[in-house]
Amino acid sequence: MADSSSVSGSGNAFNLDTVRDSLIRQEDTIIFNLIERARFPLNSPLYDQNSGLVPGFSGSLVHFIVKETEAVQAKAGRYENPEENPFFPDGLPSPIMPTTKYPKILYPAAVSINMSKTIWDMYFNQLLPLFVDKGDDGNYASTAASDLDCLQAISRRIHYGKYVAEVKFRESPKEYEPAILAQDKNALMKLLTFEKVEEMVKKRVEKKALVFGREVSLDTNFTSEKCKVDPSVVSRLYDEWIMPLTKQVQVQYLLRRLD
Amino acid sequence: MADSSSVSGSGNAFNLDTVRDSLIRQEDTIIFNLIERARFPLNSPLYDQNSGLVPGFSGSLVHFIVKETEAVQAKAGRYENPEENPFFPDGLPSPIMPTTKYPKILYPAAVSINMSKTIWDMYFNQLLPLFVDKGDDGNYASTAASDLDCLQAISRRIHYGKYVAEVKFRESPKEYEPAILAQDKNALMKLLTFEKVEEMVKKRVEKKALVFGREVSLDTNFTSEKCKVDPSVVSRLYDEWIMPLTKQVQVQYLLRRLD
Repeated sequence: MADSSSVSGSGNAFNLDTVRDSLIRQEDTIIFNLIERARFPLNSPLYDQNSGLVPGFSGSLVHFIVKETEAVQAKAGRYENPEENPFFPDGLPSPIMPTTKYPKILYPAAVSINMSKTIWDMYFNQLLPLFVDKGDDGNYASTAASDLDCLQAISRRIHYGKYVAEVKFRESPKEYEPAILAQDKNALMKLLTFEKVEEMVKKRVEKKALVFGREVSLDTNFTSEKCKVDPSVVSRLYDEWIMPLTKQVQVQYLLRRLD
Repeated sequence: MADSSSVSGSGNAFNLDTVRDSLIRQEDTIIFNLIERARFPLNSPLYDQNSGLVPGFSGSLVHFIVKETEAVQAKAGRYENPEENPFFPDGLPSPIMPTTKYPKILYPAAVSINMSKTIWDMYFNQLLPLFVDKGDDGNYASTAASDLDCLQAISRRIHYGKYVAEVKFRESPKEYEPAILAQDKNALMKLLTFEKVEEMVKKRVEKKALVFGREVSLDTNFTSEKCKVDPSVVSRLYDEWIMPLTKQVQVQYLLRRLD
């Protein structure tokens, strides 16, 4: 059953409801991916910039794997969809075939906003150590594939701020125009901040992490409250990184919305 | 929190309990991946053998994407782990770096058993149409990445039959030796079939699909019983394909266990 996880699919409506549905659906994707990453321990050699593990390549092994995997996906047209933002856009190959014409929803002057570098650093330096065990089981390729799934889901959610900003602007342009014309970031941030909603999102993702991360058994409803990923880490991920970075994307987008 | 999803990680014990824990944990992975694949409609051009979408490549687009992605993962050593079986082993590149020495648990004469072709055909021809919507949203690269996640999770689960057979054989070799010496497939299949356990697994995965696939909201426990993937499809996947194919792997493994 395909759900409203995308506004860029052909025939999907673009309004506040479809954008909200997509944001909620993306929470599940992010949490599933974190739970899957937690199957592996940290596997730190994967992230060592100076490991020299990859002959002729100066970055970490995870950098190499993500870059090569993005190249495969680029050939198949992944990044033609404006919802998708590569982590390593330089030198990405072109699609090898005719690709989908996605509806042009975003404002052209603001479409290129990109937080990939910030997301990459946040994920590896701050988030990852909070929810995986220390240790090294040697499964580097599988671990990196799982990291990429997490990164793509989080990046998609944060860059979705462009769609959030666009739909809000279209629904009430008069509300945003003065702050945009004044290029007033603080005023825009204030217009985009709804503390009650943010509290609700944090509680909901915490609950989802509990529901998806507990062991489901037939005997009782739940055998234990032990979760594969600590629900409070997911709440913190939204509180400290996903929601603030999404709002930064929205502010940057709106600043260019009348260019 | 790393869990017992692997017996090949260094330091993990190999016994009936760890194998059972891994099988149960792998259910979650399979169901998460099916739910994620259901975000996209069928996207049938991806599977067209004669689409000619990829210049100079004679198979389908999904074949191309899976083959290229497996090549990236092979370079990083994924298939050095005997739990992992590529779909397109021909011409796979060697690891570009020193890889983990996985413990040699499996019996060498039986380690090469491979059902990838059967799994590939089952997934695309039988399973996929049961749980995705008809339609085409053009997101072929993302859909193919999601197909690969499903395929890898299902393949890993089915090929895990080798570990199941090995642990059962080690625990009571006398029970299996007569049938192995007689190369009696039917007798082995009978020894490996526990209808009560299979019924329980089917019920458990159906429950997991319900728990993971429902919309989680804060208001009530669950707003609706509508699931992202029909739980009866997951039960059927286990009943008709995963459990029978795993038993086939076990039988084939045991037939070679005294070579």
